Amino acid sequence: MTQRGALDAPVRFGANYTPSKHWMHSWLEFTPDDVRRDFAALAELGLDHVRVFPLWTVLQPNRTLIRAKALDDVRAVVDIAREFGMDASVDVIQGHLSSFDFVPAWLHSWHDRNMFTDPKALDGQIALVERLGEVLRDAPNFLGLTLGNETNQFSAQTHPSPWPVTPAEAEGWITALLDAAERAAPGIPHVHSEYDAVWYMDGHGFTPAHAARLGAMTTIHSWIFNGTAQRYGGRSVASDRHAEYLIELSRAFAADAARPVWLQEVGAPSNCLDESEMPGFLEATVRSAVSTENLWGVTWWCSHDVSRTLSDFPELEYSLGLVDSEGVAKPIGRRLAEIIPELRQRRAAPVRETAIVVEVDAGDVPLSRTALSPGGAVFQAWVDACESGLDPAVVTSRVADDEAALTARGIRHLIRPDLSASTVDRYDSVNTVVTG
Amino acid sequence: MTQRGALDAPVRFGANYTPSKHWMHSWLEFTPDDVRRDFAALAELGLDHVRVFPLWTVLQPNRTLIRAKALDDVRAVVDIAREFGMDASVDVIQGHLSSFDFVPAWLHSWHDRNMFTDPKALDGQIALVERLGEVLRDAPNFLGLTLGNETNQFSAQTHPSPWPVTPAEAEGWITALLDAAERAAPGIPHVHSEYDAVWYMDGHGFTPAHAARLGAMTTIHSWIFNGTAQRYGGRSVASDRHAEYLIELSRAFAADAARPVWLQEVGAPSNCLDESEMPGFLEATVRSAVSTENLWGVTWWCSHDVSRTLSDFPELEYSLGLVDSEGVAKPIGRRLAEIIPELRQRRAAPVRETAIVVEVDAGDVPLSRTALSPGGAVFQAWVDACESGLDPAVVTSRVADDEAALTARGIRHLIRPDLSASTVDRYDSVNTVVTG
Repeated sequence: MTQRGALDAPVRFGANYTPSKHWMHSWLEFTPDDVRRDFAALAELGLDHVRVFPLWTVLQPNRTLIRAKALDDVRAVVDIAREFGMDASVDVIQGHLSSFDFVPAWLHSWHDRNMFTDPKALDGQIALVERLGEVLRDAPNFLGLTLGNETNQFSAQTHPSPWPVTPAEAEGWITALLDAAERAAPGIPHVHSEYDAVWYMDGHGFTPAHAARLGAMTTIHSWIFNGTAQRYGGRSVASDRHAEYLIELSRAFAADAARPVWLQEVGAPSNCLDESEMPGFLEATVRSAVSTENLWGVTWWCSHDVSRTLSDFPELEYSLGLVDSEGVAKPIGRRLAEIIPELRQRRAAPVRETAIVVEVDAGDVPLSRTALSPGGAVFQAWVDACESGLDPAVVTSRVADDEAALTARGIRHLIRPDLSASTVDRYDSVNTVVTG
Repeated sequence: MTQRGALDAPVRFGANYTPSKHWMHSWLEFTPDDVRRDFAALAELGLDHVRVFPLWTVLQPNRTLIRAKALDDVRAVVDIAREFGMDASVDVIQGHLSSFDFVPAWLHSWHDRNMFTDPKALDGQIALVERLGEVLRDAPNFLGLTLGNETNQFSAQTHPSPWPVTPAEAEGWITALLDAAERAAPGIPHVHSEYDAVWYMDGHGFTPAHAARLGAMTTIHSWIFNGTAQRYGGRSVASDRHAEYLIELSRAFAADAARPVWLQEVGAPSNCLDESEMPGFLEATVRSAVSTENLWGVTWWCSHDVSRTLSDFPELEYSLGLVDSEGVAKPIGRRLAEIIPELRQRRAAPVRETAIVVEVDAGDVPLSRTALSPGGAVFQAWVDACESGLDPAVVTSRVADDEAALTARGIRHLIRPDLSASTVDRYDSVNTVVTG
C-alpha cells in the first residue's frame, strides 16, 4: 500500500461527491467549471478528499463499448480535485445511488444476466475496471478504486430483480475485480463496499469476512435509518455510535490486526434527525469513529444537497449535504470544518478490554446476522455496554476461544449475548433503499 | 395535416437511422460529422427521410430534468438531415430498440411505475413530448413525432417487467401524448407505433382500433421473424406480402377511408433470409406495399448495420442495414436505390373486390387476434387468396354486415375464415424481442 492508504498520516476527512447541478446525471454533460465550483466549497471546509461516482450506463453503455470520453471525464474530475489540494477515490460500478439503479441495457430486462456470476457480465466489468484503472493510475492524487457503491444491493433478496449469490460467488466477483484493479493500477489501495446487509441480513451472499479481509481496507457504510434511529432515537447512544459499532464489528472479522478501516459513508438523514440535531450527530459520530484503531478516514455522505428541481428522490436525500444546492456551507458542514483540525491529529485509541462475542460457524459466517442488527442481542449488548461507560470491542466466537488472540488485543472480559432473548424482527433492508 | 403527411406527394422512402458509430449510444456523445457521414450515404441512395431515435435515458434522466443539450442534439440531427435534402421523423419515448430497453432510473427497479397509467409518469412523458415538440416545430423538414418505438412492448404479458394496460388505459396514454405533441408542434402529423402484438396477441391492451384511428397516420411495423418466415418460408408469398397484409388488416379498422398508412418499419432479417435473398425480399415487400391505397411511404429498418464491435445484439441486428457499418451501400441498399425512382410515382391501387372478414366485438376488438397471426385462420385465408392470384382486402364483421360500406370500398366477395379450424399456437411475442 502506498502512502495514500497509510495510517501514519493524519486522519482523512472528505465527502462523497454529489454534484450540485444535475446530480450524477451531470456525467451526461461533463462541465469542468461546475465541478470546480463544487470542489471549491468542499476545499473551503478543509476536506482533503472526495469520493466520485461515474455512472455505469455512461461509462459502458454496451458491454464492449467503454467510452473513452467518459473515462477522460472521470480523470478530469480527479485532476480538478488536485487543483483544490484534494485527493479523489473513484467508484467504478454504479450501479446503485440514492435509491436509483443505473444498470446498462445489456444487463437487464431482455438481457437479464447475473452481474456477479455470468461470465460475459464478469468479463465486461473486468474490462471496465482495467480501463478506468489505466486512465487514473498516474494521477498523483488518485486514492484507488472502490468496486462500486453498495453493489451488494443487487444481490439482496429484497431487490426488485435480485441477482442472488452464494458467499463463494460474491467472493469470486470481488476478487476478480480487485485483481483487475491491481493489474491496471498497481500498489494503490483498491477496495469494495457493501451496504449493511453484509452485517445484518441472514443468508446474504456478501459476508463480514469479505468486508474485513478482501481489498486494501475495510469500508464501512453507516446509516441510522436502518432501524437504529427508529428503535433507539436519532441522537441515542446507539445512533451516535452506530458507525463505531460497525467499525468494531468489522474488526472482529479482520485477519490482519493492522488492517485499515475507512468509514466511507455516513450521513445525517432527515427522517431520523431534526435539522438542528444534525451538526451534533455529525460531531458525535465522527468523534466516536476516530476513537477506533486504524481508521484511515471519514467520508461524509454527502457533499451537496440534491436540488429540489430533481424529483423522486427519497425525501431525506434532499438534505444530506454538507453544502446546500446553491453552494453555501450548511451548519452541519461548518461543524465538520470546525472539528477537522483537532480530529485529524491521530491519538492513541482507548484499550477495549471488554468484548462482545459474535457466534460464527466454521467459515466465520455469523450464526445470526439478525442478532447483530439494530435491536438484536449483539447490537443490544453493544448499546448496553456503551451506556455503562465502556468502549466495547467485538470478537467472533472462534477468537473468544483463543486466549492468545484475546491477550494480543488486550481483551479481558467477554460478553456472550443470549441469542434466544432477541426480539428483533428479521432485518428488513427496505429501509436501506434510500442509502447512498 | 400539412404537406408533410399528404398523399398527393410522391411515395416517401426513407430509413430508420441506426448510427454507424456507437449505434444509439452515440447520443451520449453527439458528433455532427458522424451524422453527416451517415446521412450522406443515405441521401446517395435516393432516400428522402430518416426516422430518428433519441434515448429516453439521455433526454430525461430524472423525471423533472429534461436536458436542453439533449434536445438541441435532436434538433441538430434534424437540421443535418436537411443539409442532405432529407426530412426527419423523431421518436420520443425510447424506450425499446433492437432488444434493448432504455428506461430511466426514475421508472424502474425501486422506482417501478407503470409508464402508461401512473399519473407522475404520464406527466413526465407529456412534459418531454412538449419540450421536444417545441424544439422541433419550426424545422421545415420535421415530419412529426412518433410517441416512441413500439412502446407497447412494455405492456405485453411477455415483457420481463410488464406494465399491463387495459384498452382504455392504452388509449389514454396515446391520446394524452398525441395531444401534447399537437399542442407543442401543431399541424404536423404526429403518430404512435406498436409492434405486431397489437394485431396478433389476444388480450393485448393496445388494439387494432388504436393503431388505425389515433394519430395522423396508421404506422405499420412488419417483421417476418414473427412466425411468418418460420411457417411459410422467408421468400414465401406470406413473407413477401406480410407488410401488405398488415396494411390491409389495419385498413379494416380505420374509421376514415382516406387515412394515410405509413409502413414505418420493415426489414430483411438474417434468421429468415439468406443474404442473397435480401434484395429480392426488399423489392417484393416494397412493391406489394406500394400497391395499397393511401400509403404515405416506406421506412426501411435500418440505415446502417450494427458494428461487430458492439455486443449482445440478436445476431440478425448486425446485418439489417442498407449500408454497412463502414458506410458502404450493400446490395439490399442498392436495390432500394434502383426501385425508388419508379415506385415513388403514385399509381392507382388495384381494386380489392374480395375481402376477408375479421370477427370483432362491439368495441371492434378482434374475437381472436391469434386467428390474425401467422398460421391463424384469417392469416391463412389471406395467403390462400394471394396464392390464387387475388389482391384481397380485409374487413371487420361489423363492416361485412354493412352493404353500403362494402359497396363504398368496391368489395363484392367475402371470405369468412373458420376460426375453429385454426391450428396456430397462441401468438408468442418472444420472436419479436429482436425487433427494432
